[in-house]
Amino acid sequence: MTERASGLDLHVGHLGRNVRAGLMDAFREAIRSGRLAPGTRLPSSRALAADLGLGRNTVVRVYSELINEGWLTGVHGSGTEVARRSAESAGERERPRPPAAHPQLAHNLRPGQPDLSSFPRDEWIRAVKRTVSTAPFEAFGYTDPHGRRELREVVARYLARARGLRARADNVVVCSGAAEGLRLVAAALVKAGVTTVGVEEFGLQTQREALVKAGIDAVPIPVDADGADVSMLDDMPNLGAVLLTPSHQFPLGVALHPDRRAAVVDWARRRGTLIIEDDYDGEFRYDRSPVGALQGLEHDHVIYLGTASKSLAPGLRLGWLVLPDHLVAPIAAEKGETEETVGFVNQLAMTDFIESGAYDRHIRAMRSQYRRRRQQLVDLLGRHAPATRVTGMSAGLHIVLHRPGRTGAQLVRRAAREQVTIEPLEFFRHPGSTSDRDGVAVGFAASSPSAWSGALDALVRALR
Amino acid sequence: MTERASGLDLHVGHLGRNVRAGLMDAFREAIRSGRLAPGTRLPSSRALAADLGLGRNTVVRVYSELINEGWLTGVHGSGTEVARRSAESAGERERPRPPAAHPQLAHNLRPGQPDLSSFPRDEWIRAVKRTVSTAPFEAFGYTDPHGRRELREVVARYLARARGLRARADNVVVCSGAAEGLRLVAAALVKAGVTTVGVEEFGLQTQREALVKAGIDAVPIPVDADGADVSMLDDMPNLGAVLLTPSHQFPLGVALHPDRRAAVVDWARRRGTLIIEDDYDGEFRYDRSPVGALQGLEHDHVIYLGTASKSLAPGLRLGWLVLPDHLVAPIAAEKGETEETVGFVNQLAMTDFIESGAYDRHIRAMRSQYRRRRQQLVDLLGRHAPATRVTGMSAGLHIVLHRPGRTGAQLVRRAAREQVTIEPLEFFRHPGSTSDRDGVAVGFAASSPSAWSGALDALVRALR
Repeated sequence: MTERASGLDLHVGHLGRNVRAGLMDAFREAIRSGRLAPGTRLPSSRALAADLGLGRNTVVRVYSELINEGWLTGVHGSGTEVARRSAESAGERERPRPPAAHPQLAHNLRPGQPDLSSFPRDEWIRAVKRTVSTAPFEAFGYTDPHGRRELREVVARYLARARGLRARADNVVVCSGAAEGLRLVAAALVKAGVTTVGVEEFGLQTQREALVKAGIDAVPIPVDADGADVSMLDDMPNLGAVLLTPSHQFPLGVALHPDRRAAVVDWARRRGTLIIEDDYDGEFRYDRSPVGALQGLEHDHVIYLGTASKSLAPGLRLGWLVLPDHLVAPIAAEKGETEETVGFVNQLAMTDFIESGAYDRHIRAMRSQYRRRRQQLVDLLGRHAPATRVTGMSAGLHIVLHRPGRTGAQLVRRAAREQVTIEPLEFFRHPGSTSDRDGVAVGFAASSPSAWSGALDALVRALR
Repeated sequence: MTERASGLDLHVGHLGRNVRAGLMDAFREAIRSGRLAPGTRLPSSRALAADLGLGRNTVVRVYSELINEGWLTGVHGSGTEVARRSAESAGERERPRPPAAHPQLAHNLRPGQPDLSSFPRDEWIRAVKRTVSTAPFEAFGYTDPHGRRELREVVARYLARARGLRARADNVVVCSGAAEGLRLVAAALVKAGVTTVGVEEFGLQTQREALVKAGIDAVPIPVDADGADVSMLDDMPNLGAVLLTPSHQFPLGVALHPDRRAAVVDWARRRGTLIIEDDYDGEFRYDRSPVGALQGLEHDHVIYLGTASKSLAPGLRLGWLVLPDHLVAPIAAEKGETEETVGFVNQLAMTDFIESGAYDRHIRAMRSQYRRRRQQLVDLLGRHAPATRVTGMSAGLHIVLHRPGRTGAQLVRRAAREQVTIEPLEFFRHPGSTSDRDGVAVGFAASSPSAWSGALDALVRALR
């Protein structure tokens, strides 16, 4: 039912239960659309109320609210009119169209993504329930921006146990994923006068961009089969820090050689510089037990960056920094006193999840699932696409494939024809790198178990 | 490492992780030992912060805590000095003992904090359970940094309905609290060439600092009983934007007058500038229904900043921006492609919480609880402390008290003796403000229902 009110071009539909709100909306809409022009004199509240069959008080309140909001103007002695504004208030403008959804192929073999279908939903829900129902009141308030104490304690213990870190809760900062951690670190480095940070010549563009956004030059360091060639560092005098993936180079998949681990620590100590250790998937190592984190060797010059994004799910947005003592205050200053970023429910649930052993169980289960997949992938390629060379297979959620005579871009295109998404190495190459290394990174974790064998077959077809 | 700060005989050792607590201890120790004599004028927070390499906010908070504890005195117009005990209170008991790590008086009447004990735990747990058990796999992965579509849809609808916004999901960005929202906005403004933003002369220091950290000058705009005096804006040609709390000025508690709402919109349109509308507690209005948001009047020049921190709980870290069309892409660029900050569990639970009606129910229940408390507070003050003048009482979670002949700092001190934490207006004053407005902000929401009447009695004793 739509009616016109008191000669106004005011389409008052069925006003519903909340008559006042409905009438206000009708006015706002009419003014917005230009149907009620600026300066239009409105009927008296009595006349409009009679017209609409409403109580006069309702209309008086609506007029008064709309005057308060600036839509109408009360003209003393002569009623109410639509507010006059200098700019044209009429007419809906064109709005930007929502971006087209990223084309999604049937088989997701992107690197760096865990199997989301295996997320332990029930255990997570139980952890939320246990912790939210018993949390102290203060947990719901503004709390320590470095993260809840109980989570920092269990993360410190977990990292000491599982990754060989020297970590105390005081040095742990809970972050909204490793991305926030790197953003905070970059900002603190800039304040400390760092202008240049070395990054592996193959790596995540988003990380290079985070540095650049903070005002830091990200300069490439060559990577070979032993990881980043840190012998170059002494020839790069401007470096204030180096960002490395020592346990599992991303995306090449190699581990930093023990001699190089020692050498980079030595460099940092001699030069008073910092190593930013991105330990994104250190839990997943297949041929032997995980290589401990570099931070275990040296904690005064290493900033450790960890995350639950690969071990559990990126969508949780849970990461952590482990900082040298002297960086705790600068990072605190960067984060601000009230700018906690991670919600307490997530923090408490993660605490419970680690403490109850559910986190370790989940990682063990996923490790064995991923190990099986990796083996299937390698076996099948060996049988059906023997020209394909596989590297970087000792750890993590992806491998690197090379096919003599075919570029990475060609492999990606062939895969796409089979509805498979993989990523070319060049996608990760630093623009300043001189490497001619080519190939593709293939993630074997992202598929759900039910989709995995179809994805595998499609990939083999593409590489045959 | 020990250094002397700003010429003070203040031995600041290694401040450790909790810089604030360390600095407070250093002050207490210096005052206790007599090295800082009563009446000693302290350096400005800015100077001391620079001297110690700390954030200014940290020093401001330390000063304010120490004023609360009675160690220091805020002297209007001339900074902070070591409290003169003998002159001030002849019959004073012992000097305050250094409180535990987190000095906490028995009664929390700080402004800006909701009643955390009323958080609807069971309903939130149910929302988590419902959504996590049914979420699509992709929700657990890297998703849209602007926030999940379903949450942006319900937030847009909620804001249109409850706050009169013109909001579409495309223009909504989910943030880790309003703090992240303002950080993103500040960064985008800087990129767009904005150098100066007007802020209300009384407001949150953390907001001013967020602007300054991004490289923006935050210049004060006078506030009177009609809100920010936006007639000044035309005389401030460098302003690229203005940050306002139109529905409920924080902390003074007044609403922006309708004429000024129209005037500031007119200014923004004429000058092509922006209004950042911080609508932190717009839901809580007691004398009549909420004043709609300014954004409803003008959506091309208003950046709307909303939060669940007052309506539900700060610890959730849930906030939202509603952006003009032309700012959607710049904020997206600022946020980065993968830097989603709010975990999906929180986002899905909030979606369910709003959609199920639980959010509206909670707000209604809290509104009536807060209204009752506000009335009790005003009644009791009227009976037992009639010299106290109350302002800013029509909305929000706090009121402002003035007591002729007593400074805000004095009131804070008297309250502290009764174990009540309240905050002096000067705590919120822009350093460049010339206002001599004095008083205290008293939050009536933060107490749990069981603690409320004790807090009320203690406050009345302090103000008698």
